[in-house]
Amino acid sequence: MNYALVRHVLGKILFVTSLLMVPSIIVALYYGEGWAGVYPFLVPIGICVLASLVMSSKRPKNQDFFMREGFVIVGATWILFSFIGSLPFVLSGSIPSVIDAFFEASSGFTTTGASVLSQLELLPHSQLFWRSFTHLIGGMGVLVFVLAIMPRISSDSVFIMKAEVPGPTFGKLHSRIRSTARILYGIYFVMTAILIVLLIAGRMPVFDSFLHAFGTAGTGGFGIKSNSIAYYQSPYLQYVLGVGMLLFGVNFNLYYALLCRQFRTVFQNEELRWYFGFITAAVVAILINTRHLYTSFATQLREVFFTVSSIITTTGYTNCNYDNWPLFSIVVLLILMFIGGMAGSTAGGLKVSRSAIYIKSSVLTFRKNLSPNRKLPLRFERKVIGNELKMMLYEYLTIYCLVFIVLLGIVSLSAPDFPTAFSAVTATFNNIGPGVHLVGPTGSYAFLSDLSKIALSIGMIMGRLEILPIIVLFAPRTWRRT
Amino acid sequence: MNYALVRHVLGKILFVTSLLMVPSIIVALYYGEGWAGVYPFLVPIGICVLASLVMSSKRPKNQDFFMREGFVIVGATWILFSFIGSLPFVLSGSIPSVIDAFFEASSGFTTTGASVLSQLELLPHSQLFWRSFTHLIGGMGVLVFVLAIMPRISSDSVFIMKAEVPGPTFGKLHSRIRSTARILYGIYFVMTAILIVLLIAGRMPVFDSFLHAFGTAGTGGFGIKSNSIAYYQSPYLQYVLGVGMLLFGVNFNLYYALLCRQFRTVFQNEELRWYFGFITAAVVAILINTRHLYTSFATQLREVFFTVSSIITTTGYTNCNYDNWPLFSIVVLLILMFIGGMAGSTAGGLKVSRSAIYIKSSVLTFRKNLSPNRKLPLRFERKVIGNELKMMLYEYLTIYCLVFIVLLGIVSLSAPDFPTAFSAVTATFNNIGPGVHLVGPTGSYAFLSDLSKIALSIGMIMGRLEILPIIVLFAPRTWRRT
Repeated sequence: MNYALVRHVLGKILFVTSLLMVPSIIVALYYGEGWAGVYPFLVPIGICVLASLVMSSKRPKNQDFFMREGFVIVGATWILFSFIGSLPFVLSGSIPSVIDAFFEASSGFTTTGASVLSQLELLPHSQLFWRSFTHLIGGMGVLVFVLAIMPRISSDSVFIMKAEVPGPTFGKLHSRIRSTARILYGIYFVMTAILIVLLIAGRMPVFDSFLHAFGTAGTGGFGIKSNSIAYYQSPYLQYVLGVGMLLFGVNFNLYYALLCRQFRTVFQNEELRWYFGFITAAVVAILINTRHLYTSFATQLREVFFTVSSIITTTGYTNCNYDNWPLFSIVVLLILMFIGGMAGSTAGGLKVSRSAIYIKSSVLTFRKNLSPNRKLPLRFERKVIGNELKMMLYEYLTIYCLVFIVLLGIVSLSAPDFPTAFSAVTATFNNIGPGVHLVGPTGSYAFLSDLSKIALSIGMIMGRLEILPIIVLFAPRTWRRT
Repeated sequence: MNYALVRHVLGKILFVTSLLMVPSIIVALYYGEGWAGVYPFLVPIGICVLASLVMSSKRPKNQDFFMREGFVIVGATWILFSFIGSLPFVLSGSIPSVIDAFFEASSGFTTTGASVLSQLELLPHSQLFWRSFTHLIGGMGVLVFVLAIMPRISSDSVFIMKAEVPGPTFGKLHSRIRSTARILYGIYFVMTAILIVLLIAGRMPVFDSFLHAFGTAGTGGFGIKSNSIAYYQSPYLQYVLGVGMLLFGVNFNLYYALLCRQFRTVFQNEELRWYFGFITAAVVAILINTRHLYTSFATQLREVFFTVSSIITTTGYTNCNYDNWPLFSIVVLLILMFIGGMAGSTAGGLKVSRSAIYIKSSVLTFRKNLSPNRKLPLRFERKVIGNELKMMLYEYLTIYCLVFIVLLGIVSLSAPDFPTAFSAVTATFNNIGPGVHLVGPTGSYAFLSDLSKIALSIGMIMGRLEILPIIVLFAPRTWRRT
């Protein structure tokens, strides 16, 4: 472990963290919250700046940077970020418990949207703003952001990129990280801005429009009303957000391709087809299964489409209490939670590409057993998936299952029933937010034990970083001096 | 497809089926059930003998026998067997619905033990006997049995053995199938006989002793009392059955090794250590978690040990209503359901060896990420697991998950709640029997829709044959003439 380098980079990151709290102070001042609104942000800013000065004062001589350092930086940053990010909640008294606040902040940064709060209307504007702003930051990927704006970090930062960007990558967009990252951020911010305008045009209050756009862009899902999007009864607003979520669940490289007028790339993208395939299948299945619950098809279509879009993109906004749907629809939603959005988007879950490859490879296994002598290569995006990549994808599924089982065991110690425990793990590990029953659309995670909340917070960060960085961070072996 | 050969072999198998019903007729006559007790068996025997004569009359010229034919014979036999085996239930009126009877018979042959019956005490002796006898047959593996007693089937029958014996194989015991199978059957019957004697010695009625020994030997779990083993309040009987189940969940090759005085082989067996490790961990965890529910430690230990033994060996006998245990204990039981017994035993589930390899390979993946340059081979039973075998194990897990999801989707259409649906699929696909809530120790599968029952019947057979033969059987490609 190159301790000096890790400390140096973490110091720089802390400095950026402090900058990210400035907008919340502006909001506090704008809404006249005074000192009570400002100091919950000033204190952590002060801590960050001081720590940053100490940690980054001298440049490390040894600039060796390997995968292990990359993983440690990424893992440590996300935990540190969640801890710093929880301070405003604690200091303002919005969430008095440190563990609850850490849960809320990790939920924000990982764009999960699972909350311990129930009466959101009581929170001051600055707190609501910070809560939703963490989604915007988390969606961008904290570290890729740092890479994009900092000129002088080593070119080996590809390891950071690799550890933080979700999903298996099949393209070659990585070669020029910094410029690519800037273009992708450009797209991200323009799309967010358009969404804000569309929401305001639908008569959503300006403050609400900003916050919901943040939650949509990061596919996070923190709302600011107890009944989430159902509060805004306008079908227009619900459709804008429903479609908006879908678009932020798409691989951003495809928007880049659109900008470059590579329409064929987009049109032929296999993952995109699977994505819309899953969505269509889920919407149709749930429409049929819930037909006896609705008198108006327009209402039914809006609620089903919105929910499917919200769940598969792992956002977690709700415009109805889907917990009342028949069990089959609930199971379809749970399956969507595992599938998740497209690789290279802000969404969580296993990712559409992985899910599709698991399905394709299973079909191939059957076909191989029917004709043992035929050579049947596994293809995705018109490329053959080699054995090494295939093995990595399988290894990921196995680790994923194991971590899931461990989390389920811990949560079952304090959850009262199986659907609550199972969906709590599913909805946090895959970065969705709401599950069913007690953690459903009308519930919150507040009732869980501290142990469960810590486990699920780590679970959310594992889900966001695709597990490995956090395991590496906690392995004793990592911390041996070399 | 070599149709002539498949037809010929299936014909022979039907003849054996008819023989297997003879003991039930003897039971019917012994208990004076008269014509009403005898004819439900005579009719299927007549059908089998006639069909057998037609199908096996002439030997096929083409004796080519490949994996595909092996899979088709195995898959078709198990479905045919379950259908023929359901006829006595229908003809006697014990289970009037054909689909319910098919469910009960597949549950018996696959040694699952999931039942649609609730008032077992009302059934005549011959019916109860047939029901439990299917466990004894299913435990042996219908086809390996045929191979063992029939002298003239081609030596390529290794394909049948491969398709029917559960679990990945790491030994070389296969080379002389027929003689090995006979030795293993010898062990199986001697152990069953000892168990019968021990049960009778504990004052269980003779009839009950036979039937419970059948259910234990096959790790099936059909009881003959509504409250299963709890009916027999003797701690001695419960411990005999508890230990008996554990022993039938052990790889039979280890008993063979014991007979050959290869004590080191047994002592060093890695799968055996994992097996006892899982059991110990589960018993300790549940003891701690349920301590507030019991006043007597003796009772607690007996109920917890019995339940863990019953669940991990996928038997499914119950001596208490574990559905009242806290959620954590339920989750531990659900995890045990997936792990299952040892490969080469009569138990179901993923098998201990597979589960252990998944865990070991995940740990190895972490270690590889910590030290990317070190070569870390995956070992099991002191042998390196090559990439090809590893890939097969991963592919199995992926297919297993996919089939599980499909079954869950179907069952959720007619199950009222998630724990019922989830545990119904878990308990049938892994060949356990009872799940939780409505399909728990005090419930039955009767309330499910016909579609769910058919799906779960196929699921049980898939679980018993490790999926592939059934998929091959239903693939249109298989049935093309070549």
